[in-house]
Amino acid sequence: MNDKKLYTPGPLNVSLSTKEAMLVDLGSRDLEFMDTVKYIRSKLLEIAGVSSDDFTSVPVQGSGTFAIEAVFTTSVPRTNGKVLVLENGAYGVRIGQILNALGIQTKTLKFLEDEKVDVKMVEKELMKDQSFTNVAMVHSETSSGVLNPIKEIGVLVEKHLPDASYLVDAMSSFGAIDIDMEGSNIDFLVSSANKCLEGVPGFSYAICRKERLRKCKGWSRSLVLDLVAQWEVLERTGQFRFTPPTHAMLAFRQALLEYEKEGGLSGRAQRYKENCQIIRDGMKSFGFKTLLDASHEGYIITSFYFPQHSNFDFQDFYSGLKEKGQVIYPGKVTKAACFRIGNIGHLFPRDMRHLLSCVKEVCRDMDITLPMDMKQDWI
Amino acid sequence: MNDKKLYTPGPLNVSLSTKEAMLVDLGSRDLEFMDTVKYIRSKLLEIAGVSSDDFTSVPVQGSGTFAIEAVFTTSVPRTNGKVLVLENGAYGVRIGQILNALGIQTKTLKFLEDEKVDVKMVEKELMKDQSFTNVAMVHSETSSGVLNPIKEIGVLVEKHLPDASYLVDAMSSFGAIDIDMEGSNIDFLVSSANKCLEGVPGFSYAICRKERLRKCKGWSRSLVLDLVAQWEVLERTGQFRFTPPTHAMLAFRQALLEYEKEGGLSGRAQRYKENCQIIRDGMKSFGFKTLLDASHEGYIITSFYFPQHSNFDFQDFYSGLKEKGQVIYPGKVTKAACFRIGNIGHLFPRDMRHLLSCVKEVCRDMDITLPMDMKQDWI
Repeated sequence: MNDKKLYTPGPLNVSLSTKEAMLVDLGSRDLEFMDTVKYIRSKLLEIAGVSSDDFTSVPVQGSGTFAIEAVFTTSVPRTNGKVLVLENGAYGVRIGQILNALGIQTKTLKFLEDEKVDVKMVEKELMKDQSFTNVAMVHSETSSGVLNPIKEIGVLVEKHLPDASYLVDAMSSFGAIDIDMEGSNIDFLVSSANKCLEGVPGFSYAICRKERLRKCKGWSRSLVLDLVAQWEVLERTGQFRFTPPTHAMLAFRQALLEYEKEGGLSGRAQRYKENCQIIRDGMKSFGFKTLLDASHEGYIITSFYFPQHSNFDFQDFYSGLKEKGQVIYPGKVTKAACFRIGNIGHLFPRDMRHLLSCVKEVCRDMDITLPMDMKQDWI
Repeated sequence: MNDKKLYTPGPLNVSLSTKEAMLVDLGSRDLEFMDTVKYIRSKLLEIAGVSSDDFTSVPVQGSGTFAIEAVFTTSVPRTNGKVLVLENGAYGVRIGQILNALGIQTKTLKFLEDEKVDVKMVEKELMKDQSFTNVAMVHSETSSGVLNPIKEIGVLVEKHLPDASYLVDAMSSFGAIDIDMEGSNIDFLVSSANKCLEGVPGFSYAICRKERLRKCKGWSRSLVLDLVAQWEVLERTGQFRFTPPTHAMLAFRQALLEYEKEGGLSGRAQRYKENCQIIRDGMKSFGFKTLLDASHEGYIITSFYFPQHSNFDFQDFYSGLKEKGQVIYPGKVTKAACFRIGNIGHLFPRDMRHLLSCVKEVCRDMDITLPMDMKQDWI
């Protein structure tokens, strides 16, 4: 099997050296492995810019959605729990699905998919209803590419609902977009190994305010997703409660070393921004249109409308690119037919330029002359 | 980092070729990846000896305990759910912990840790109380090494509670100990990638009777652990609902190819039996005593009493072996101080003999003369 270039929201490409770190078997009680877990947990706090006095990071087996569910099952009070969900895309919808499965009372404020969560409307809601025990939202809505105002919302939550827990799903932003956890009043931030930190998929993590986490003891509706129990055992023994994905964690340690070498958040952000700019400029020069206007400062993934050109067929476009080893992704907004090009993972400007040349070739094969004519091809 | 030999219940050693299968990045929508998932799912049914007409296998992210919790959250009715747990060790206890966290009514029949679950006592209970909707037990109790009579119990469940679902935790037996799923009336069998099938840790799976699974639609108390939803999406799209551990699954495909090459269940069982016999004979010749008597036919892991020799110190013994790259495991029975030596994973008779020579050296370093004197050293 050959590597493909994955211009997707995940799974993403990781470096060969990160994958090679998986060529070792370690026991979960091995000192080397426990050191790996310790290194990962403390490095995550460092990246989050928070102190271990006030925060802790808790890894949990499974994809990012597992950690999101873990935060809710752990941190929503068993009695009188009520969550305010701010939703403007598929990952906000997923939060609602989790809460529904958990049988937790929820109020969802829905916003347009191609716009940020509206701070004023949220403030109105928070002034109207003080019964929320938890507030949750997505930072980088990977379904569209919108970046939400987590800090403004966090300040409002602190002001109007000082007792409520504030969860931010930072799945596709953590490590590449600066997040002021303290200033944003975030109590639980969730991300996954296989996003901007470029580890392999297999586990996710929550960065938790200790004071909040402590209060949740005994609230979890699940054994495996109980973050308090997972935290307590990690602190006491250095070990996971249940068999950890040792290979994925060894890969993540290597990924974190490479992250540091790249210059940490600023280095990674710079590469992703450059990647993103190349794709947006290039696709624009071909006549493709983006879903979002320029006011959206996200640089993780870009949604492009399907051209209305009579020769354009997304399946052919997708397959043509895939045959060339380039994997893009279908859209995930309901209001428009789109595809997405992600630019995170182990991808570099040269990869983005290569993708553009492949797009050109595939369009030629589909008999679409580039640049498309904005008048004729977009009817 | 160097590989260690892991004589543990897990994580276990896997072949280098299995690990090398992880050196590739695939997207979760890639045909190659979807083919991998399809191959794994159908191969698991083949190993279970069941037809895809009646059964399906559903992989789920996380360790084996995640799949156990998934079966309960999915298959215990929301109203009137009541589970009979047959418990004779730590993994039976864990089932109770899961049910407790899920808030499910449970009755636990406790048996001695060093004896099999008593079929007669179970029958008495089943005749007395017909209100159970689910019955659950562990096949190979890795905490001690006891192998439980899952078929006898299954026949009783079928006879007395034809409507109840029967779950078997076959974590450390599936693939190496023959299980008659149909004849044992098993509805849900759970195991993990990193046990007898020798994949890397990162996901687990449930082999489910379709007729039962279908009835459970909408019962799950969790989004991520909902086996019905996971099954439906896998069938409809060939994909996981949430980011799969692609690398761990590529490793598992390779592991399954190597399993087949070894002669499937009979080949693997033969190697494990030989491994186990070498350890038991060798340790016995040194004067160590096993927790279980010879009537227990398990060949996965063996519990040995701590010798009463005044020079024996388990921490020194453990560390001494570890310095030689040999990792054994502490005991997990409450009634006696024990350690355990597992013999599954990518371990061969030569490894077992090497471990024995290391035990010899470490005992010599601890000033314990082998063989120990049964009269003087075991007071």
